[in-house]
Amino acid sequence: MTSTWETISAKKRQALADSIPAEWRIPTELMPPESQDDVTGFPEQSGWFTKDELAITGATVSELLPKLASGELSSEAVTRAFCKRAAAAHQLVNCLSETLFEAAITTAKALDAHLAKTGKPLGPLHGLPISLKDNFNLKGLDSTVGFTSHVGDPASYDAVLAEILREAGAVFYVKTNVPTAMMIAESVNNTFGRTVNPQNRRVTSGGSSGGESALIAFGGSPIGVGTDIGGSLRIPAACTGIFTIKPSFGRFPTLRCRSGMPGQEAVASINGPMTQTLADLELYSRTVVGAEPWRKDPRSLPIPWRPVSLPASGKLKIGVMWDDGMALPTPPVTRALREAVDKLKAAGHEIVEWSSEDQARGLELLGRMFVADGGEAIRNELERTGEPMRPEMVDQYGGSAKSLTGLEYWQLHAERQDYQKKYLDRWLAAGIDALLCPTTPYSSVENGKFRHVGYTGVYNVLDYSCISFPTGVRVDQAVDVPQDLATYKPLSDLDKEIQQDYDPKIVNGLMVNLQLVAQRLEEEKCVEMCKVVLGVLGQSPSGSKL
Amino acid sequence: MTSTWETISAKKRQALADSIPAEWRIPTELMPPESQDDVTGFPEQSGWFTKDELAITGATVSELLPKLASGELSSEAVTRAFCKRAAAAHQLVNCLSETLFEAAITTAKALDAHLAKTGKPLGPLHGLPISLKDNFNLKGLDSTVGFTSHVGDPASYDAVLAEILREAGAVFYVKTNVPTAMMIAESVNNTFGRTVNPQNRRVTSGGSSGGESALIAFGGSPIGVGTDIGGSLRIPAACTGIFTIKPSFGRFPTLRCRSGMPGQEAVASINGPMTQTLADLELYSRTVVGAEPWRKDPRSLPIPWRPVSLPASGKLKIGVMWDDGMALPTPPVTRALREAVDKLKAAGHEIVEWSSEDQARGLELLGRMFVADGGEAIRNELERTGEPMRPEMVDQYGGSAKSLTGLEYWQLHAERQDYQKKYLDRWLAAGIDALLCPTTPYSSVENGKFRHVGYTGVYNVLDYSCISFPTGVRVDQAVDVPQDLATYKPLSDLDKEIQQDYDPKIVNGLMVNLQLVAQRLEEEKCVEMCKVVLGVLGQSPSGSKL
Repeated sequence: MTSTWETISAKKRQALADSIPAEWRIPTELMPPESQDDVTGFPEQSGWFTKDELAITGATVSELLPKLASGELSSEAVTRAFCKRAAAAHQLVNCLSETLFEAAITTAKALDAHLAKTGKPLGPLHGLPISLKDNFNLKGLDSTVGFTSHVGDPASYDAVLAEILREAGAVFYVKTNVPTAMMIAESVNNTFGRTVNPQNRRVTSGGSSGGESALIAFGGSPIGVGTDIGGSLRIPAACTGIFTIKPSFGRFPTLRCRSGMPGQEAVASINGPMTQTLADLELYSRTVVGAEPWRKDPRSLPIPWRPVSLPASGKLKIGVMWDDGMALPTPPVTRALREAVDKLKAAGHEIVEWSSEDQARGLELLGRMFVADGGEAIRNELERTGEPMRPEMVDQYGGSAKSLTGLEYWQLHAERQDYQKKYLDRWLAAGIDALLCPTTPYSSVENGKFRHVGYTGVYNVLDYSCISFPTGVRVDQAVDVPQDLATYKPLSDLDKEIQQDYDPKIVNGLMVNLQLVAQRLEEEKCVEMCKVVLGVLGQSPSGSKL
Repeated sequence: MTSTWETISAKKRQALADSIPAEWRIPTELMPPESQDDVTGFPEQSGWFTKDELAITGATVSELLPKLASGELSSEAVTRAFCKRAAAAHQLVNCLSETLFEAAITTAKALDAHLAKTGKPLGPLHGLPISLKDNFNLKGLDSTVGFTSHVGDPASYDAVLAEILREAGAVFYVKTNVPTAMMIAESVNNTFGRTVNPQNRRVTSGGSSGGESALIAFGGSPIGVGTDIGGSLRIPAACTGIFTIKPSFGRFPTLRCRSGMPGQEAVASINGPMTQTLADLELYSRTVVGAEPWRKDPRSLPIPWRPVSLPASGKLKIGVMWDDGMALPTPPVTRALREAVDKLKAAGHEIVEWSSEDQARGLELLGRMFVADGGEAIRNELERTGEPMRPEMVDQYGGSAKSLTGLEYWQLHAERQDYQKKYLDRWLAAGIDALLCPTTPYSSVENGKFRHVGYTGVYNVLDYSCISFPTGVRVDQAVDVPQDLATYKPLSDLDKEIQQDYDPKIVNGLMVNLQLVAQRLEEEKCVEMCKVVLGVLGQSPSGSKL
């Protein structure tokens, strides 16, 4: 008799819970009550972590690496500290999908031995724990991407990116939760359930890389890797106030990951780091590209991490897009954007308005690409165990979409080519260096209410390079009052729902991220420009907002 | 009443013939008899060309450009000479699809005036006539790609590549013939008929860029641009003994060209120069990439034309593939390959055998990509005028193929990704710099008998950079005797047909090309390695074989 999807899921969740050794299970008496929204203070306040563990897990990557390379910190100590904090995170916000604690400590010890013996670090990431989103294959571990059908089907190889990170000295210790097929903007599925935001467990950590964002926001990982095909890096980064870069396709290797829609290429899934600081993001990017991923992934581009010069004047020309014509950002996002624009202007940068005229078209194309198979790939996977479709997916994947014919598929490509050309021509005609706009309409939003990926998804269709970064502005319920719904004229039904959902009491205190968009394959420029913007906002690229 | 396809075609052919001014129509008394196979001697021998015209049209691009830039030659004189020789070519081998002689002379005069006024050339291609394959859109001209349905539907914009060449100073004067939809390896369609090889009109100039190759082989163009999705640059270059480079996708801009299968992206169509010399090929590549095509074509890659260092030893490691396991090359091709290998070894280069084990799989994938729409795009275009499908296309596009569903399309992509990874891993494991192999089984072959695109098409699926180059070896009917068909064990039915077709008397004296294959996006290295190979073969990169 085959198992039902419920028993498969229950067993998998139990196995995951059991994989946490007794020493890293939160003592019952220390466990915060379920009613406690913000659990980020737990490590510091519970007394359950040693001073060393707190120091290690409070450090940034840029702080940890020199100490790991010199032996001032052992990889074993660093790995154990992050394992423990990640285990705690999972018990509080349900952010993991796999653990490999024992293997991690074995690897860490081997790296320590290597350093002791040779006097040299293995590579630029020597001894550093790195968390990975569930879909990065690691030999011997499941990559379920939320499907019960993939439970008990361990990978027989490592993802190319994992190979590269491992060769650079990284230590893998956990994989993190995602939504079913990675196609919901929150992180919920029938196998592992829902990941919530440690800053407020009533709100989402975003998706689909929302296990990562929750883990990092809790301090359970110094750096993690997520993926993005419509906003899946940028949305969770925004929901938790951390940094991420969505590169253009080909900068970081993508081969040999589990996909929710294998072989879908009309819009490319990419991956990127999720970090506490911009400096860590840059360090990671330089390291991965420096490893020449094109020698392992035939679709990676042989473009080194390039030096970039911003305009000699030091002044940028930045387009600002206040809204995308489909949904107004909620008030704290608009305020953060306005403050950033004011400060950029005051610092002498040129700000021009960027019309939203092409945004809806981009999102519409993206939607068609996602269901070019009529939703068949996802439904087939669900049917293998009889698992029901998550309600968030039913509209898109429930079967109302019809599979494209080959000819229709080609026509969709041709439309996308026209769209990309039009956007590029507008960009160059405007002569802008970057676009500044919301990452999402939200700081974050109550679990289950994330409604709009338009601000991110258009740049997947365009394959542009984007950074989502914390602005330093936090929601202030006293200032960020909702629209007066009696008089507000919504842009759309969607907009109306978003404004109605907005509750400043719930999101009060959460960080607001914005999105900085550069042209295709301008990742280096995007990083440099983000440094300028952070500087104008009075922040340091190496400062962590956590 | 709508016209029949026959009347549309007849009218279009007549208009093309009429577009040749009286002064450039070959006098009846000078016209070679239809029975004359080789017409390449016509310009020198007929007395119809002036000494100046012969000197101009006998020069390479690298010779012409400095004289055009200094004013030693006027663009008008150069343009007129090539217009006349192209007109002659068309009358002898039917290689054109459009002429724009008047516009060309106007442009040339304007360039001459610019030089006279400013003392400076407009750009690196100042005043140089460049011929374009039919599918490059030029405002106001048809791009029929052989379909009668596209007759009388002039382009409303220029192809991005044409824009770039024009801005560099090029003069457009003719577009060249292709097969229907550019999907036959010879150049024949119902609108313009068949282009034949000026070196022997009984044999093909190849396809689909076979109007270009015929024109260049006749001296009617100093340099032309073709396209390639399965061999369409390399096959015609090989059939006529000239040079071409098939770059990886993204090096040269492809946007705004007419496609036979618009939006088909599973395997990318690319374009590249067809030249008399390797030096001209390099000059063109450097110029086009130097114009930063990514600022006009969103799918072009921002990779400059890079300096490249070959191994410090000066010695290359080259894989040799004697046959692709599907069809043995005809005897002169095998002989040319053997001579090249012997000379490379003698010069100290390392030669290793490259197994053909993955070739059939690559060709099979390519075939499925071409008919992912079940042939619908092409049949729809034919049906618009009731034009019959060319017999060469019926097997593939006649309707036996079924359109893929969206899901099947994704699965095809996933198979291609696996294939690319496997080939890359093998390549790196072998540690080779390049592969040397046939471009086609033929030097050329009788019209209508070109049967196999496997040697080229696999590298489209892989997106590798390839040069097809003339070896200096010509078919010698005394030496290159056919297989003894009584005892020969063919590799396949296809192979049997190819060996049966081989007739050394017909192809005697024709040049044999080989193909040099480098990794994806290694165009610069491919050029440098080709210089090494030419050197070993005792040839100069600036020497023309015409």
